[in-house]
Amino acid sequence: MARRSEHSREELQRMALEAAAAIVEREGAAALTARKLATAIGYTVGTLYLVFRNLDDMILQVNAATLDALYREMAAASGRCRKPQRCVEALAGAYIDYAAAHPHRWRLVFDHHLPAEVSMPNEYGERIARIFGLLEEALSALLDGASPAAVHQAASVLWAGVHGICVLSLDDKLAVAGGGTSAHALATSLVNNYLAGLAR
Amino acid sequence: MARRSEHSREELQRMALEAAAAIVEREGAAALTARKLATAIGYTVGTLYLVFRNLDDMILQVNAATLDALYREMAAASGRCRKPQRCVEALAGAYIDYAAAHPHRWRLVFDHHLPAEVSMPNEYGERIARIFGLLEEALSALLDGASPAAVHQAASVLWAGVHGICVLSLDDKLAVAGGGTSAHALATSLVNNYLAGLAR
Repeated sequence: MARRSEHSREELQRMALEAAAAIVEREGAAALTARKLATAIGYTVGTLYLVFRNLDDMILQVNAATLDALYREMAAASGRCRKPQRCVEALAGAYIDYAAAHPHRWRLVFDHHLPAEVSMPNEYGERIARIFGLLEEALSALLDGASPAAVHQAASVLWAGVHGICVLSLDDKLAVAGGGTSAHALATSLVNNYLAGLAR
Repeated sequence: MARRSEHSREELQRMALEAAAAIVEREGAAALTARKLATAIGYTVGTLYLVFRNLDDMILQVNAATLDALYREMAAASGRCRKPQRCVEALAGAYIDYAAAHPHRWRLVFDHHLPAEVSMPNEYGERIARIFGLLEEALSALLDGASPAAVHQAASVLWAGVHGICVLSLDDKLAVAGGGTSAHALATSLVNNYLAGLAR
């Protein structure tokens, strides 16, 4: 049943964003339609256009909330470690755990492509840079004296590597190749051996 | 214009498969519809059901052809190296090059999910195992005396790592985190440092 003017614009935005994130979390991105979201918050589709410019804007806002949640989990995990190498392992572990616990939301961050003519909002890139920064910070402490470019490259390799482990493991593709190794075990092998190689 | 009985079933299958692969190559998987494919080969949609059971079967056959092409590229690349470590690098490079040259076909192999009640055909898993086998073979030669399980784990880590580099690089996501490092440079850093770490 559609309602009118019971909520402020800010309240509507919060309600719509929470409902959108819940639909993606439960049913995946394909289930997120304006109609379904309007029904979930008890307003008309027209009301949604007061808080989202279009479907892409709605997805970007859901993804921004996902990146914030991922950042909190990763910051908490690395905050619990003293040794930099343990931090790197903890960051990888938190990334894998988040992807496994929220596969639909995690996938949407990486599967969503803006139309070519739309540029990504600054705040979005900043959120990714903030997560990446956690890894660079731990690696800077570990790779004593390494240049910022070398730290950046090592962080890119480890992020991409752990990301690939998550992608293949969520899709059960690692099993096709013979299986028998968990995402966490692969990430630990990646982090420990890659860092040992770099430290030569 | 729809035709009748000018081709044998085998000819139809080959024509349809080539046309389907060409549509995916050019326009991406979303463009691959039965109607479009039928038009491309000049037959009716009904004729397609003589050679494909359904859309999933059509996609699986396109993906099988993609995996065969990827295997040929990788086997040729590793066949040109003498030293096992160069082989591993060459395999990673060929994987990245194939993904970059045929992004839509490469993505479809990993993005396509069969309905839960349909099991993957054996030949499909065998094709993936054959590609994975190239990497295990090079690693066995390199990691002298390592157990099959250790070789398998190392191959899984390297495959997933290079796969993650491909995924993020195709989506331009590495640039969001600061950029400045090519997929090939990241893969070389991954392979060399990971293998050096393992060899300790």
